[in-house]
Amino acid sequence: MGGSPQPVTYHPIGVVRSSFTTPAGTPLQSVAASDVHGRIELDPRYEPGLRDLDGFSHLHVLTHLHLARPGELEVVPFLDDRLRGVFATRSPGHPNPIGLSVVRLLAVEGPVVHVEGLDLVDGTPVLDLKPFVPDFDNRETDRIGWFSGKTGQVFERCADDRFET
Amino acid sequence: MGGSPQPVTYHPIGVVRSSFTTPAGTPLQSVAASDVHGRIELDPRYEPGLRDLDGFSHLHVLTHLHLARPGELEVVPFLDDRLRGVFATRSPGHPNPIGLSVVRLLAVEGPVVHVEGLDLVDGTPVLDLKPFVPDFDNRETDRIGWFSGKTGQVFERCADDRFET
Repeated sequence: MGGSPQPVTYHPIGVVRSSFTTPAGTPLQSVAASDVHGRIELDPRYEPGLRDLDGFSHLHVLTHLHLARPGELEVVPFLDDRLRGVFATRSPGHPNPIGLSVVRLLAVEGPVVHVEGLDLVDGTPVLDLKPFVPDFDNRETDRIGWFSGKTGQVFERCADDRFET
Repeated sequence: MGGSPQPVTYHPIGVVRSSFTTPAGTPLQSVAASDVHGRIELDPRYEPGLRDLDGFSHLHVLTHLHLARPGELEVVPFLDDRLRGVFATRSPGHPNPIGLSVVRLLAVEGPVVHVEGLDLVDGTPVLDLKPFVPDFDNRETDRIGWFSGKTGQVFERCADDRFET
């Protein structure tokens, strides 16, 4: 790599407010949480950054999965029973445990964003919000590796405690 | 918020190798860089985490946009001529400048991932890789706010120096 890049420090812009108090029992993906309402409460200083956000129906929410236990580079993911390289999984325990959720925006109220589709534990720090733009974000894929035939399980199964601290 | 969350420190897992040496001239989105080949070079210690990744045709690449200049909460985005709340834009200069790219995987060779669709400057630190899974990641939206009618411009325009350090 020609010398490792320097560590990066981020200051969370807010927190998730949801009805999930532990990772165990939390939906595995936001597509499987379409009936789950919650809030993203930003630090009020960031409120001006929310201007125009209410024009969008969907948002990317980037979070710090603070309860994840990073470390293992091969993990047995929730939807499988075999060890997989962690970067080939959507498990929370990546070396940098950054959560990527797509939620439906319901309303913006001051520094609070009301959303639907939260697959996140209450108190999860929020790092960033970006508008979801299908022309940029949707893809047709040729191959989805070991997920093939397994994605429907996210509607039946929830997280357990395997990646928790 | 009931007390701000603590700062978060991440250690990049690798760097982007691309032909773009400055943000000015770099594609605005990975969809507009489908002919741009590049590499993600991981620190060799993370190589075991890449197992099984070659089964996927597309990846999310989360990066630290190290040349971005965070700070302003209202910005004039590349594709518009009006001030917008920064969280309603895909501009690089978000308070936590995390890049979200979707690239096509060409090959995995040891700790190196060869990809197509890189909208990133050479040397950009990489924070995470996740497989792209359409059932989890694609969305149909009702509204795309101020991007309406403007997304096609990413195929004609490149970044300029407005969000650079």
